[in-house]
Amino acid sequence: MQLAFAQLNVTVGAIQENTKKIKNAIGQAKSQGADILIFPELVICGYPPLDLLDNPAFLTSCEKALEEITKETENIAIVLGTIRKNTSGKGKALFNSAAIIENKHLIGFQDKRLIPSYDVFYERRYFEPGQQSKVWNICSHNFWVTICEDLWNPPLAHELFYIAPDTKKVCIEAIINISASPFTITKQKQRLDCFTSIAEQVQLPILFCNQVGGNDSLIFDGKSFVLNAEGECIDHLPGWEECITNIHLKKQTSNYTLKDSSIEDIQSALILGIQDYFYKNQFQKACLGLSGGIDSSLVAALATKALGKENILGLLMPSRFSSKGSIEDAIQLCKNLGIQYHTLSIENTFQSLLDTLQPYFGNQDWNTAEENMQSRIRALLLMAFANKFNYLLLNTGNKSELAMGYCTLYGDMCGCLGSISDLYKTQVYALAKSIKEIPKESIEKSPSAELRAEQKDIDSLPDYPLLDSILQLAIEENLPSKDIADKIKTEFSFVDKILKIFHQNEFKRQQAPIPLIISKKALTVGRRFPITHHFT
Amino acid sequence: MQLAFAQLNVTVGAIQENTKKIKNAIGQAKSQGADILIFPELVICGYPPLDLLDNPAFLTSCEKALEEITKETENIAIVLGTIRKNTSGKGKALFNSAAIIENKHLIGFQDKRLIPSYDVFYERRYFEPGQQSKVWNICSHNFWVTICEDLWNPPLAHELFYIAPDTKKVCIEAIINISASPFTITKQKQRLDCFTSIAEQVQLPILFCNQVGGNDSLIFDGKSFVLNAEGECIDHLPGWEECITNIHLKKQTSNYTLKDSSIEDIQSALILGIQDYFYKNQFQKACLGLSGGIDSSLVAALATKALGKENILGLLMPSRFSSKGSIEDAIQLCKNLGIQYHTLSIENTFQSLLDTLQPYFGNQDWNTAEENMQSRIRALLLMAFANKFNYLLLNTGNKSELAMGYCTLYGDMCGCLGSISDLYKTQVYALAKSIKEIPKESIEKSPSAELRAEQKDIDSLPDYPLLDSILQLAIEENLPSKDIADKIKTEFSFVDKILKIFHQNEFKRQQAPIPLIISKKALTVGRRFPITHHFT
Repeated sequence: MQLAFAQLNVTVGAIQENTKKIKNAIGQAKSQGADILIFPELVICGYPPLDLLDNPAFLTSCEKALEEITKETENIAIVLGTIRKNTSGKGKALFNSAAIIENKHLIGFQDKRLIPSYDVFYERRYFEPGQQSKVWNICSHNFWVTICEDLWNPPLAHELFYIAPDTKKVCIEAIINISASPFTITKQKQRLDCFTSIAEQVQLPILFCNQVGGNDSLIFDGKSFVLNAEGECIDHLPGWEECITNIHLKKQTSNYTLKDSSIEDIQSALILGIQDYFYKNQFQKACLGLSGGIDSSLVAALATKALGKENILGLLMPSRFSSKGSIEDAIQLCKNLGIQYHTLSIENTFQSLLDTLQPYFGNQDWNTAEENMQSRIRALLLMAFANKFNYLLLNTGNKSELAMGYCTLYGDMCGCLGSISDLYKTQVYALAKSIKEIPKESIEKSPSAELRAEQKDIDSLPDYPLLDSILQLAIEENLPSKDIADKIKTEFSFVDKILKIFHQNEFKRQQAPIPLIISKKALTVGRRFPITHHFT
Repeated sequence: MQLAFAQLNVTVGAIQENTKKIKNAIGQAKSQGADILIFPELVICGYPPLDLLDNPAFLTSCEKALEEITKETENIAIVLGTIRKNTSGKGKALFNSAAIIENKHLIGFQDKRLIPSYDVFYERRYFEPGQQSKVWNICSHNFWVTICEDLWNPPLAHELFYIAPDTKKVCIEAIINISASPFTITKQKQRLDCFTSIAEQVQLPILFCNQVGGNDSLIFDGKSFVLNAEGECIDHLPGWEECITNIHLKKQTSNYTLKDSSIEDIQSALILGIQDYFYKNQFQKACLGLSGGIDSSLVAALATKALGKENILGLLMPSRFSSKGSIEDAIQLCKNLGIQYHTLSIENTFQSLLDTLQPYFGNQDWNTAEENMQSRIRALLLMAFANKFNYLLLNTGNKSELAMGYCTLYGDMCGCLGSISDLYKTQVYALAKSIKEIPKESIEKSPSAELRAEQKDIDSLPDYPLLDSILQLAIEENLPSKDIADKIKTEFSFVDKILKIFHQNEFKRQQAPIPLIISKKALTVGRRFPITHHFT
């Protein structure tokens, strides 16, 4: 028996396109001699469909697509993810299911049993949990079929499968797991740890077939794999690309070793995330503001890799506070990347605004009003280019500044996509250092918003390594101020002040561009907070 | 036995303030001779706490507050909503519970059984459903205790209570329902329909005690009520205000009749929503742009009622395309409302931007780039006033334009709060007509964005009554294009085109200010859609 994986990149709601892709994959697998072809979770409709699931026409389209796909399965079996109507009249209207089809015959549906409702997952809004796990006979072999989360809780998985009533009576070949498991920096390790523990417990191979591609904030890495009954990884597919291939169930030469490749992985994730956001939304060209600083330089480099240098426009928009170095660094970056750039001064417009406001502002001290005005003029110019020439504006803010509100709403917070808004500043540095086109000067100089004379980030914020460790413990680990202070040996009052500022800036984050997620807790999409609240 | 309701306005996360409020209410109820005082759902922590619930310190604070409150219950019993730890090790970490306390003794917790995960409710993200309903003996009387959603599904409610094993053995006095049930236009009717059906079925009175006040997008209307065993409404509390009062279980003179007061109710909701957003976030003053049009006039009027005329600043920002009438109407409005206003021309700044862009735009046709620039200059000026003088900027967009993307991102879409962004344009008209300070001219003239010569909304959009009925059927009723076309007797292709535009503008909505919700399906908060999707 030959098994195969179709690690596909599908688009949410593109049911016809996705169906075509699925049919092509079936054809290809047949020509490679596969007996059973395994697809990812919800591959017909794409993941996450969110409230599209509330539209009855969406369900109908998926049902029709499944019929069409079924007709293509002569002499092959497939396992693929789709939605299924809950006809019980109780609970949510749908199941998140695996359809099991063999030789043009729909054998049945295995419904997902553990429905995730945490972080970026909102599945309980739509899906009723499946009530039982059956042994599925496919091509005369027996399998458990599971869907993503079903295998993410080893004790529960044990309960669901191993002690299921009919387990001991039949010989089970393997556990199939169809997934739409999004990338985070530690995700592949978590998957391997979790699935290995289950394989060992139930003494069965696990076949993990994952989605690949970007859909808004979520970036799927693929990296499907096969574990043997001892929990060893004996076959695996590449990350970040589509792949339709036969898989091995017998141990090959050497074990899969998980590379500690977080920098390369983050880069691949962001490139794919930008690429798919643009292509799936039918845009080719990106513009962005270039300050000569590290954040915008990194985004320019990533966007160039994602969309091609001919599709990137950088705008340099100096003011009276811009250093000569900033402009030179930005120009050097554009030359290194081979991208087009224009230099537009914001001075005249800034002066015109100051003149307009003078009768009302009078002798008031210079404050964030004037600082933000500069940032907002830049956004205005960028959006003018975007509107005139059909660019999408890329946001260049990072997670540290978004957390602290050290950014201007409707200014540098503009853009369609927060390309690096889930990266702390320290991660921005690490990634930027790995990209040779980014001038050393941009990396080495002290970060500055250049919105007033001699301004440096360090005047308003703590050192980034310290700030980032506080934020990381608060956001990703959910620790209270006291525990953070203890852990990093800092004053409680200092940590508390940082976290108060963090909370106070929720209003900005809720109007921020969607982030490309790479961490286990991204601001806004995976972290739903009230704007109005008094808890700190 | 004397029962009482404490229909309170609490703030999310303000655990100490809320506790103080609860203790005061207990004192007041005691002095009014109450034996049992009933509070709303999650009254200790406020609703909706969202991911604050993931913070262990939040649970600890709520537990401490409950202990403190328990000490205040000498010679009185209370039923109040709070969170409770799930110690089973299975499922979500918390229960959404009613604590039942009598004479300084915690009798126990009734856990919420039906956990809503739809529309604006995300409770399944945090709460495990309770497994059983007990009969609670409070002051020697027996009650069922339920929490909000528990009574929103009459067949299930019937199953949960009426056929529960010990029901027939004891005499039950009433069903208590503690709620945080947010306002929508039809909500009180739905509550009465639903609860009446249950009261009739189980032949028991229902005591519905609801929260009041605004917390971000959700506005709670209060309007707590008492149904007798025949399902008649025999007592009720006022809407839109706090109220601590004894309630009647015996039928008084006349029945409560539901007034068809949607216009007044919408107005009350929006005023309370604005008020609580400002006060709970410790702001007093609002600024907004005034075009002389109906949307901004309505928001100015609502804000004046909410915050006081001395706290409102209107900015008139005419351009070469502003009609004389627009300026006159805006000035007349300010005079009628008694609010301060300034007039700032955007012409110089607009010209300066055009000059800056001329080398790049050359002879390109005028398009949305130039139109949006004007809207963005206005936002920039408004935000400058906000930043300089500590105003919050109120957004003035409506639901029809937000749906169609007939608004400028980072321009007129700016603001902290979408005060009327859940009102269709036709609802804006209806509400504006009821407010005498809004000049008749603003209501009667043909709507225009005035971003190019002779521009009218009607050049880009269908008539608002037609547009709104299409949008309403698509958004609130979730009907596909074909059914909408049939229903309103219009061409399918026309409806389809409208809904394509609606879908394409999701990217704008995801950066819009949070709306004040008055409909049963608000854009964004209650409707989670992918930006990137190909389904229409």
